[in-house]
Amino acid sequence: MHLTRYTDYSLRVLIYLGAHPGKRATISQITDHFGISRNHLVKVVHNLAQLGYIITTRGKSGGMVLAMEPEKINLSAVVQRIEPHLDLLECFDNQSNTCPIAMQCKLKGVFFQAKRSFMGVLNNYTLADILVSEDTQPAPSLSEHIIPITLHSNN
Amino acid sequence: MHLTRYTDYSLRVLIYLGAHPGKRATISQITDHFGISRNHLVKVVHNLAQLGYIITTRGKSGGMVLAMEPEKINLSAVVQRIEPHLDLLECFDNQSNTCPIAMQCKLKGVFFQAKRSFMGVLNNYTLADILVSEDTQPAPSLSEHIIPITLHSNN
Repeated sequence: MHLTRYTDYSLRVLIYLGAHPGKRATISQITDHFGISRNHLVKVVHNLAQLGYIITTRGKSGGMVLAMEPEKINLSAVVQRIEPHLDLLECFDNQSNTCPIAMQCKLKGVFFQAKRSFMGVLNNYTLADILVSEDTQPAPSLSEHIIPITLHSNN
Repeated sequence: MHLTRYTDYSLRVLIYLGAHPGKRATISQITDHFGISRNHLVKVVHNLAQLGYIITTRGKSGGMVLAMEPEKINLSAVVQRIEPHLDLLECFDNQSNTCPIAMQCKLKGVFFQAKRSFMGVLNNYTLADILVSEDTQPAPSLSEHIIPITLHSNN
């Protein structure tokens, strides 16, 4: 269970542009900054422009800027509009599902609830909340985010 | 963002065994029931046995049964122990991460929080909660689970 590189790079473009307000950025600047492939980024930028998150201009002084304030860019919306695979299990898609117990199975309902909770957290944040500012403290360490595993229930 | 077929099939095996208590099931019975590949299921069953969720016996009257009561099998634990990719973004893995802003970026913290929330929902359920019984009502329809999309924040 992971987000695609496509979504990851889309978020990086938004973060870069949000951190450089008022400056027109080029694809080369962003690929250099993150050390990522230009080919991947061209598609990502095209899609972000089509979705209305950024404005691109061609020409010698061309480049891209955010199309709106970072406070207006909701992270749940970005992920839901860009991530191509949000069907956690085969049974999420009635058209392609082959599992014969899908109509009665309660597993799907549990995973829908989990996905809703996941998106609910993202929905609480905008691009403005995650921008890296110069006076930013280092991000919390991984140990603060360890998810406890209950190997077996005790009830 | 989706779970692997491996995890999907692991859950199906557990659901099948939980729905047939006291009966020794064969791989053929489960592949026939779900219409899935035997090759895939052999690996899935071997792993479930190694993790202690099922007991397999060889021979003419061999097969598999759950190693514990369905109430003892927590869904969050199953997913965390079986799903091979729980790193939502490249920066989740310090060893393989290449993103240069990972140490300062706040995105990781938001996604950790979302993942924790996702697993928190699964942690509320055991295999017993999702078993299909004969008097089961059809599962809730998809429309009850639609996640509202906030295209742009209004604040």
